[in-house]
Amino acid sequence: MSAFNKLSLDAVQEEGFKPLRKTFSEGGNRNNVSAAAPGSFKFKDELADFYKYIDYREEIYVNRLREAVAIKSVSAWPDHRNEVIRMLEWTKDWTEKLGGKVELYENPCKVQQMDDGTTIPLPPIMLGSFGDDPKKKTVCVYGHLDVQPALLTDGWDTEPFELTEIDGKLFGRGSTDDKGPALSWLWMVEAFNELKMDLPVNIKMIYEGMEEYGSEGMFETVNELSKPGKFLANVDFFCISDNYWLGRNKPCLTYGLRGMAYFEVGVECSTKDLHSGVYGGSVHEAMTDLIKLMSTLTETDGTINVAGVMKDVAPVTEKEKESYETIDFDLANYAEEVGVTTIGEKRLRHNTKRDLLMARWRFPTLSLHGIEGAFSDPGAKTVIPRKVMGKFSLRLVPDQDPKQIAACVTKHLNDEFAKLGSPNKMWVKAHHGAKAWLSSTDHPNYTAAASAVEKVYGQKPDMTREGGSIPIATWLEDATQMNVLLLPVGACDDMAHSQNEKFDRKNMVAAIKVLGCYLHEVAKIRGPKPSDCRCEPLTMEDMMIPGAFARGFRCKCEI
Amino acid sequence: MSAFNKLSLDAVQEEGFKPLRKTFSEGGNRNNVSAAAPGSFKFKDELADFYKYIDYREEIYVNRLREAVAIKSVSAWPDHRNEVIRMLEWTKDWTEKLGGKVELYENPCKVQQMDDGTTIPLPPIMLGSFGDDPKKKTVCVYGHLDVQPALLTDGWDTEPFELTEIDGKLFGRGSTDDKGPALSWLWMVEAFNELKMDLPVNIKMIYEGMEEYGSEGMFETVNELSKPGKFLANVDFFCISDNYWLGRNKPCLTYGLRGMAYFEVGVECSTKDLHSGVYGGSVHEAMTDLIKLMSTLTETDGTINVAGVMKDVAPVTEKEKESYETIDFDLANYAEEVGVTTIGEKRLRHNTKRDLLMARWRFPTLSLHGIEGAFSDPGAKTVIPRKVMGKFSLRLVPDQDPKQIAACVTKHLNDEFAKLGSPNKMWVKAHHGAKAWLSSTDHPNYTAAASAVEKVYGQKPDMTREGGSIPIATWLEDATQMNVLLLPVGACDDMAHSQNEKFDRKNMVAAIKVLGCYLHEVAKIRGPKPSDCRCEPLTMEDMMIPGAFARGFRCKCEI
Repeated sequence: MSAFNKLSLDAVQEEGFKPLRKTFSEGGNRNNVSAAAPGSFKFKDELADFYKYIDYREEIYVNRLREAVAIKSVSAWPDHRNEVIRMLEWTKDWTEKLGGKVELYENPCKVQQMDDGTTIPLPPIMLGSFGDDPKKKTVCVYGHLDVQPALLTDGWDTEPFELTEIDGKLFGRGSTDDKGPALSWLWMVEAFNELKMDLPVNIKMIYEGMEEYGSEGMFETVNELSKPGKFLANVDFFCISDNYWLGRNKPCLTYGLRGMAYFEVGVECSTKDLHSGVYGGSVHEAMTDLIKLMSTLTETDGTINVAGVMKDVAPVTEKEKESYETIDFDLANYAEEVGVTTIGEKRLRHNTKRDLLMARWRFPTLSLHGIEGAFSDPGAKTVIPRKVMGKFSLRLVPDQDPKQIAACVTKHLNDEFAKLGSPNKMWVKAHHGAKAWLSSTDHPNYTAAASAVEKVYGQKPDMTREGGSIPIATWLEDATQMNVLLLPVGACDDMAHSQNEKFDRKNMVAAIKVLGCYLHEVAKIRGPKPSDCRCEPLTMEDMMIPGAFARGFRCKCEI
Repeated sequence: MSAFNKLSLDAVQEEGFKPLRKTFSEGGNRNNVSAAAPGSFKFKDELADFYKYIDYREEIYVNRLREAVAIKSVSAWPDHRNEVIRMLEWTKDWTEKLGGKVELYENPCKVQQMDDGTTIPLPPIMLGSFGDDPKKKTVCVYGHLDVQPALLTDGWDTEPFELTEIDGKLFGRGSTDDKGPALSWLWMVEAFNELKMDLPVNIKMIYEGMEEYGSEGMFETVNELSKPGKFLANVDFFCISDNYWLGRNKPCLTYGLRGMAYFEVGVECSTKDLHSGVYGGSVHEAMTDLIKLMSTLTETDGTINVAGVMKDVAPVTEKEKESYETIDFDLANYAEEVGVTTIGEKRLRHNTKRDLLMARWRFPTLSLHGIEGAFSDPGAKTVIPRKVMGKFSLRLVPDQDPKQIAACVTKHLNDEFAKLGSPNKMWVKAHHGAKAWLSSTDHPNYTAAASAVEKVYGQKPDMTREGGSIPIATWLEDATQMNVLLLPVGACDDMAHSQNEKFDRKNMVAAIKVLGCYLHEVAKIRGPKPSDCRCEPLTMEDMMIPGAFARGFRCKCEI
């Protein structure tokens, strides 16, 4: 038994390890998982001991994830704010235990304004760091420790806050979004520590607790901390693991995200809810107007009817069309994943891989989410609601500006409302917006990650874009002009935000490995550190060129 | 001090009377209320002592109403089912205390089926009776003891289940709908008892606890109890006090109600909710289809777009137009009551009294109530809901058949869905329907009530129709072929079903008086009892003639 084997056994006992419920025999699984664990076949690698150590510690990581999942850090539940803070403190304690320095940075917005006029405190932002060697490059990881709401009655098959393993899948709210990936950085550092291996780069961590509820205060925090001499000033590379692979097995690196523009359109017809029998026929009903307005926005086939919205969408080139052909994406699997294979005519909105990926990645979409103020319970209620607010949002692609989109949407709705001839009060509110984001797959941050992925998983990653928005990616790039890498470690079917969210056991193990390997690859990048770049700040025009947007890359200091 | 004064003082002490919170000086109010109390100027009336006794007991009635309001008998709250039963038992105890006979009749549907597959028991139906003299006529009163849901956070100014008096208005859930009116019958009987006055008719009571949630089991109960020898078999006249005056002060009798057809239209696009960023563009979103479908149903001006719905609506005659002119109805007051006077262009859907009353009484309307399954909370959520159900209903007028309306609506929605070319699953569900109801103001039941109203309030009632539906009126008439009188005792601004429901103190007192007087007037009706009528059962054609529909009226046994 080698030194680290002994160490890990001690740790297992020390941490009071308890096996999870499993649906298969204990022995069979351990063997299977070990055999299949990515990276385990790469023992000739310079990080061979590191990988082996992580494999051996697998059950401990599961146990710690179970602890983290049990903390109900739901940022959308105001009465659970203390749980969000508890999760931040749990992570702070681990970071310090592993030799890191931590500050719980006060959220600059301080409090969250509630609809009833009251306020509740916003949680702090955790700033952690391991090492501050000026000769080393500095990688900063962003993560979030809050989770989406979850109730067993939403349709979960297992208790959402009780990590439950079924067939190698670790089910629990936050398992993959984003507790599992965010905590992997700590266990990676722990492995380096235990193996007496030097960290190849300095690590910084910026972990928040409000990501699932709009990241209030993060934009201001990132801007403040990017000023000279502040926490983010000497960061060379950013890395975020808060999205997912395109498929179930093949890893990918993500270089593009859609932006977002979220809207509320409201109509008010009376100061009070009215009984539809007694009063039906008396007022211009707010719901009639709202439904009319919402019905003008989009079509069943996905066409967006708002004039001006498609203006800045780049035309599709032949070269771009071809690029989709090589991507590993199975339309039949995907149809099953999104859940259309048993509904109606059982079909997706597009019937080729290319059209479907383009619809998700490079075209804007408009989704109607729901209505606040109307009757929404099961059963029947004969109410004429006095005030109703429709919620919808657009996903934006590069070159689309959320402000311009908001102007188009507002004009469209005002024009449509004028056509109705309604005397009601109507308003449009643009909630929050985020530009789409596009990086370059040629950037050394990406090539380093691609190399790490290939070493750990044994295959080159697909280079993909994604439909969702991660506003923090844009904020970090805008404020620091450093490259941001999206390094997903979870599978496409992890069901973040949905019922039965899970993180595959094998992917949890591989995540810790790939992060360590990525740091090693970053350390190998030649040339000066991007944070030493003294070029003039990039102009707005520079920033509009996809992939050009990073210091130390395609500038005089080019690495 | 007369005998009944002494009696009532004892009762006051016996019942532990506590004054309610008032916003004006105690003395001033008592004087005002006494001076204004309807009926108090009619001491020459044969019922003068009865009226005087009721005036004196006023505070006791308030106190008992407070007790009843405090019982949270919300039929829509499954976890409050025991409170509904407690309210029925509270009423049973009072009925027995006052010498009545009571049976708690088991609901023939026994249990309520919940959405999650579980069941909870349905409350029993209270059958009460005072007297069974075969020489007297029998009046049966229908009432309900359950209430609409209510929470302070819904926007109530006072605790909804704590009766609170402000300026002579008794605020509390159920105060006017329907506890206040339903209990008035008991206090009226009590007054007759205490004054040693003979009840002029036999009284039967059929009081239920599920009216605000669809009256499950009542249709079956009414049909069963109308069979020969059963509880309703010898009833001659029905009386219901479960609607409201057209204005704030002038009483009315209601001879027409609109019917109802309630629908759900559902669309399902996936087996799970999807993240609009990750999946937007992939599926034919259910919300897009549903909003399109709902938008085709009606227009801002109230036009109903469903082909065939207007087919059976009778044309407006000149005579009918004229009949609206004399009705006491103030458009400006009404605008304030429905709450449009501070919103947008501050206007109702119609700008003449006649057009507005016709829109509420004699034309069908269609209201969109809301959507189940979509996002409905405050804030922003980027969900593509997997399955959404739109809820809407039509109010029907005489000659419209809910079944034919359901066929038209289903065809319309199927046709519109076909136009969308959507692969989603779509369905239409007709929830419950009720025919409109029209009685005759010439029926002795109505002329007796009109006489009572004039004696107690000092003015002739308006003869009105109403927009709402009271299915039980149709069920009672259909099953027994006896006339049903709607005798509202609350004002138009009582806000049943809404926030700040109230019952005016003076109307509560007048209600007890008018019911007693009405029974006296019924006793005076000449001719045989309608229940003795042995004519052939009325045919369906007979039943289509408004007002022809009652035994003992316009038949060989005509009273």
